Amino acid sequence: MPHRHDLNPRVSVDNVILGFDDENLNVLLIGRSLADGKMDDVLALPGDLIYENENLDMAAQRVLHELTGLTNLFLQQAGAFGDPDRLSKPKDRAWLKTVRQEPEVRVITIAYFTLINMHEFAPQPASFAQSVQWVPIQDIGDLAFDHNQILKTCLSRLQETIAIKPVGFNLLPTKFTLGQLHKLYEAILEKPLDKRNFRRKIQKLGILTHLDEKQAGVPHKPSRFYKFNEIKYRELAETGFDNFGF
Amino acid sequence: MPHRHDLNPRVSVDNVILGFDDENLNVLLIGRSLADGKMDDVLALPGDLIYENENLDMAAQRVLHELTGLTNLFLQQAGAFGDPDRLSKPKDRAWLKTVRQEPEVRVITIAYFTLINMHEFAPQPASFAQSVQWVPIQDIGDLAFDHNQILKTCLSRLQETIAIKPVGFNLLPTKFTLGQLHKLYEAILEKPLDKRNFRRKIQKLGILTHLDEKQAGVPHKPSRFYKFNEIKYRELAETGFDNFGF
Repeated sequence: MPHRHDLNPRVSVDNVILGFDDENLNVLLIGRSLADGKMDDVLALPGDLIYENENLDMAAQRVLHELTGLTNLFLQQAGAFGDPDRLSKPKDRAWLKTVRQEPEVRVITIAYFTLINMHEFAPQPASFAQSVQWVPIQDIGDLAFDHNQILKTCLSRLQETIAIKPVGFNLLPTKFTLGQLHKLYEAILEKPLDKRNFRRKIQKLGILTHLDEKQAGVPHKPSRFYKFNEIKYRELAETGFDNFGF
Repeated sequence: MPHRHDLNPRVSVDNVILGFDDENLNVLLIGRSLADGKMDDVLALPGDLIYENENLDMAAQRVLHELTGLTNLFLQQAGAFGDPDRLSKPKDRAWLKTVRQEPEVRVITIAYFTLINMHEFAPQPASFAQSVQWVPIQDIGDLAFDHNQILKTCLSRLQETIAIKPVGFNLLPTKFTLGQLHKLYEAILEKPLDKRNFRRKIQKLGILTHLDEKQAGVPHKPSRFYKFNEIKYRELAETGFDNFGF
């Protein structure tokens, strides 16, 4: 029988946590420390080996919590990544030697992703994460291992989903303007969307409740705030989002 | 360096091959032989351990070919399955002892699935598959390991997909009637669909080309044959299947 903290040397989980800051879509990345204690300049998704006695979903939650302090997020599986050479970059190999008992062993990783409101969470680095930071998607350079590929896959999944049904409300504050929602959709789809057409489509769905409250202290005409109507959303989700799509 | 045929003892692939026989959706299952050479009555998805030097997609293709003779199918990843007790049923354990070097080791499996036209392929059992057979979805009993769960996940994925965009044409013969297409959709969605409404929606998309040919030798009014218009389909896929959905 495996013990409580026996690691599976060949299977890991990696988490793609996406957040929105009213302008950009961001991903949560960690910094690793090198053998000499200095910070590696290569950032990584928060991931690690699974334990022998936990299932994959539990492993994703635990690893995310250990490295960033985030807890209890709705993590969805995005896929398995298992190219035989995914751990072969020299910097990754050097780092693996500092943390793994069997650094030469091939590791298949299962990727998970979720969308969160950046302002509601305060990730803190822990365990082998020396730093944890939000990085705008468009500023992301070469990440560790195959993490660029994993991120790309998650973004495609998100783009496919949002093209057919409205998602992403948990990336926004509880009350938001249509302008914020519009920017979020543009950030996810990585293309400009006609403003009038976007507003018409999204309002026609009836999943937004408008509030008797407007922006204050803005240099332009204050916009009305909206709230996401989750009950209406669930009703629509049952019958299908006919006519939706960008 | 791993050798050509070194197995990864902890990671496998399993394939969900779905076919349609004009009435039912079927899944391709294999029979295993027990230690005494007799057939096990528990059927399984065609799956096996991956090699150390191949990626997951290649492993899925190879394993499917080795067990069933099928080759070069468009296999899509459906997800990873890794409950710690997924190999713990007594019959599965007994079988594992006959084929695995390390039968006690936990194995995470990556599931792949595809849709094929049953009449165009002739699977043949090989390797440890003693038999290979098409089983209608509604007749499936307890499968090996967590294969019922894997199948269920693949069917849900297929149902989600078909609810928002037309798929499944590769389950049908090259020329088919609207009645056959209607039955296919009902089989996948596991619910009756209004015939007139179905025909109207599917024809409105413009992805069917009608042929100057009708059924012959049928006891009812012969139906017209249609062909799937792949070029038109690709055009629509680019812009989104607005208004589609059941």
